[in-house]
Amino acid sequence: MQHKIFIYNTLTRKKQEFVPLIIGKLGLYVCGPTVYGDAHLGHARPAITFDVVSRYFSHIGYKVRYVRNITDVGHLTDDVAETGEDKISKKARLEQLEPMEVVHQYTESYHDSMRALNVKSPSIEPRATGHIIEQQEMIRKLLELGFAYEANGSVYFDVLKYNEKYPYGTLSGRKVDELLENTRELDGQSEKRNSYDFALWKKATPEHIMRWSSEWSEGFPGWHMECSAMSTKYLGKKFDIHGGGMDLVFPHHEAEIAQSTAVHGHDSAQCWMHNNMITINGQKMGKSLNNFINLDELFTGTHELLEQAYSPMTIRFFILMAHYRGTIDFSNEALQAAEKGLNRLLSGIETLSKIKASSENTLDVEKLTNKCYEALNDDFNTPILLSQLFEGVKSINSIAAGNEKIDTAGLDALTKLFHNFTFDILGLKSEEEDVKDGNDLSGVLIEMLLNMRIAAKENKDWATADKIRNQLTEMGIVIKDTKDGFEWEIK
Amino acid sequence: MQHKIFIYNTLTRKKQEFVPLIIGKLGLYVCGPTVYGDAHLGHARPAITFDVVSRYFSHIGYKVRYVRNITDVGHLTDDVAETGEDKISKKARLEQLEPMEVVHQYTESYHDSMRALNVKSPSIEPRATGHIIEQQEMIRKLLELGFAYEANGSVYFDVLKYNEKYPYGTLSGRKVDELLENTRELDGQSEKRNSYDFALWKKATPEHIMRWSSEWSEGFPGWHMECSAMSTKYLGKKFDIHGGGMDLVFPHHEAEIAQSTAVHGHDSAQCWMHNNMITINGQKMGKSLNNFINLDELFTGTHELLEQAYSPMTIRFFILMAHYRGTIDFSNEALQAAEKGLNRLLSGIETLSKIKASSENTLDVEKLTNKCYEALNDDFNTPILLSQLFEGVKSINSIAAGNEKIDTAGLDALTKLFHNFTFDILGLKSEEEDVKDGNDLSGVLIEMLLNMRIAAKENKDWATADKIRNQLTEMGIVIKDTKDGFEWEIK
Repeated sequence: MQHKIFIYNTLTRKKQEFVPLIIGKLGLYVCGPTVYGDAHLGHARPAITFDVVSRYFSHIGYKVRYVRNITDVGHLTDDVAETGEDKISKKARLEQLEPMEVVHQYTESYHDSMRALNVKSPSIEPRATGHIIEQQEMIRKLLELGFAYEANGSVYFDVLKYNEKYPYGTLSGRKVDELLENTRELDGQSEKRNSYDFALWKKATPEHIMRWSSEWSEGFPGWHMECSAMSTKYLGKKFDIHGGGMDLVFPHHEAEIAQSTAVHGHDSAQCWMHNNMITINGQKMGKSLNNFINLDELFTGTHELLEQAYSPMTIRFFILMAHYRGTIDFSNEALQAAEKGLNRLLSGIETLSKIKASSENTLDVEKLTNKCYEALNDDFNTPILLSQLFEGVKSINSIAAGNEKIDTAGLDALTKLFHNFTFDILGLKSEEEDVKDGNDLSGVLIEMLLNMRIAAKENKDWATADKIRNQLTEMGIVIKDTKDGFEWEIK
Repeated sequence: MQHKIFIYNTLTRKKQEFVPLIIGKLGLYVCGPTVYGDAHLGHARPAITFDVVSRYFSHIGYKVRYVRNITDVGHLTDDVAETGEDKISKKARLEQLEPMEVVHQYTESYHDSMRALNVKSPSIEPRATGHIIEQQEMIRKLLELGFAYEANGSVYFDVLKYNEKYPYGTLSGRKVDELLENTRELDGQSEKRNSYDFALWKKATPEHIMRWSSEWSEGFPGWHMECSAMSTKYLGKKFDIHGGGMDLVFPHHEAEIAQSTAVHGHDSAQCWMHNNMITINGQKMGKSLNNFINLDELFTGTHELLEQAYSPMTIRFFILMAHYRGTIDFSNEALQAAEKGLNRLLSGIETLSKIKASSENTLDVEKLTNKCYEALNDDFNTPILLSQLFEGVKSINSIAAGNEKIDTAGLDALTKLFHNFTFDILGLKSEEEDVKDGNDLSGVLIEMLLNMRIAAKENKDWATADKIRNQLTEMGIVIKDTKDGFEWEIK
């Protein structure tokens, strides 16, 4: 099957057909976390969004090189003004650790959360501190080409100069004149020719711990440099898709485009994809609002805004219920609805596994399959895909109830469809699998008890039969008598 | 309790009392893996050895900064001659991947294996490619000080020059004159003034992918540079313990000592600790001998030399059964003995948890505790520690059988002793915990069946009673009738 995939390109503000630079290969770069705190909902959304993008391209036969970086230097406490302390150094000072201990701790914590969410590891996970030389080389080129200037040991990107040759602000829809009016003149910015110029290299103040030698000063790279340098190193001067959260459009991605264009003569990415933001009970997430929910708090239900724990797969399902470009509002009601939806989908797949093929067929599995692919081919529309899968679940239940029929070929195709889309592409999984060994034994024991119950009934020992049923029911095991014997499931 | 810890220092060939550079703090650097293949037994031993060292210092109140590096560049296929291809680039060429994809894949695989072995993550895990600038700075200093020379864009350490000022070869017991006689003159070494000089920076050949700019050439650092640069960055010019496998003593650690001493005027580490090697059925491990067993193969029993799968905790226990400075020979018999030993220890702890305190006490727990500490204080003697713990298990069984008595304070102390040494310090764990949720349900179901068996016996329904017993026995559940009813365990 040939797939025409349409993706909304933030740069052109249009859905455009995706044409890879090299047939059968996808180069994907996504901005990863700044590792100075535990992963929260704001990290889960881009990770899951681009995990599905990467999984889908792999599924349809692409060889994917997925690069997702770790920002471990250069991200200052005041992003816009580019002043303040390095976010990691600040955390290191507060926790009395060496900055790289902070980086290690929170990188591990991020990986743990991603594993829980069944987000696959990317192909390469480069770190900003691991690419200082590559960043310095790019800064050197920008200076040579006249798109940057040095001031007191720091180097800044010259936006006005760039704007004379290439349009600045296309991605975010900003114009340089407007930028000038809207930016405050701040202390420490006086080195810059214009307030909207941004740092490529910052001279380290004496108390700044994270520093490297350079011809300009002992200092550290500006936050935007790393992505330009690392995407070029691992994906080349031009690659297919650059992704990230919508909050990164300005200034981060705008700066990246300017840096890469200035050096290469063209933008680095063919297509810019941005996932939308998450609100909590209708409010923006923010530390001051005390609605900043860590993923671990969600998994354990320990934040005061949460009525219960939500499993990683519930969170994943919840994020997939919305299209990546739409906002999502997290609330207990919405999460509980996601939990139910996930269970309905997984129960449907469980029922499907028990269906026996008939000689007749009343179901058009091919049509359903095509609709599933169409949903993803249309800008990765996961909510439409899920609604198609739920149509499929309805059909499964109809077959199980004997109202529809499916033949062997149809059953194989339907099973493949559900496994491909639910597990391989959407990356959902049954969370009971995690305790599989134990559950296998439980299953054997339950069947042993239910066989004893049948024997008791045959002996008209109703007391024993009822006792077994009642005790199992108390344990949350649902028993259904069938004409062949019994079925059971753990609630 | 004050602890005098004695450690065998490879440098002085003596057990010496450990005195930290800063009271209450431990700086520990250990050479980690070169990530171009799955982790094998040779990776498990140093990881477990120094995990116990780090855990023990933490246990007795030290604040530990444990740095374990990832070598992702510079390790050539012919270590001794310093020629051939970069090990990672070679793997990348064979697998048609970008070198950093190889690094990512095998770093993840290493982490997975370490997690399975319950090896704690270090405080910092720096990568060689992430510290090119730091390595270049150190090379620059060596050139300035006259301990290095440039030749055709490569830079070499001048061993003869160094040996005029500081003794070279102390760690490995080699003398420069002997080195000269014993080293072959090889192609590509002609740039070197002497065959035992080693590379600090190598100019990249045109086909060499992993390269960085420098004033000498586009090239890459020599393998030994990274550890000197990274240990200095994260632990300072002088730190407490440097660890690694005995195979690293020469040339790697000897070169590290020379580099650091040349720059700092003194060796970087106070104490050099080396774990001994592993043989397989009496033979050295080697790819050509087909006895190179990956950890995953051990965990799943899929290597042709293995009679069965061995769990990660069996491997861990097996490694701890030998003193770290002794060789270990892996064989099926030895691993099966380790499996039994581990089960005996864990069953003892299980029995301990069921013991009820008496008003009398016949056991000297304090004496046993002191012996356990003494074992570790004497150069981390884990086999002696285990023998003390087995003495403790004997006492536990005597108490359970009513032959010895323990009071409340004694029971608390004994429980603390076993938990501290078995779980916190030796890092062992019950592997059943991993499937706990499932097993809880199984336990309830087993007890339900055993109660039905008692009821059947009371009704003189021997057929049913026997049937329950037989079926459970078939599932590997061992039933023991007691005067109060029954006991059971899953084999």
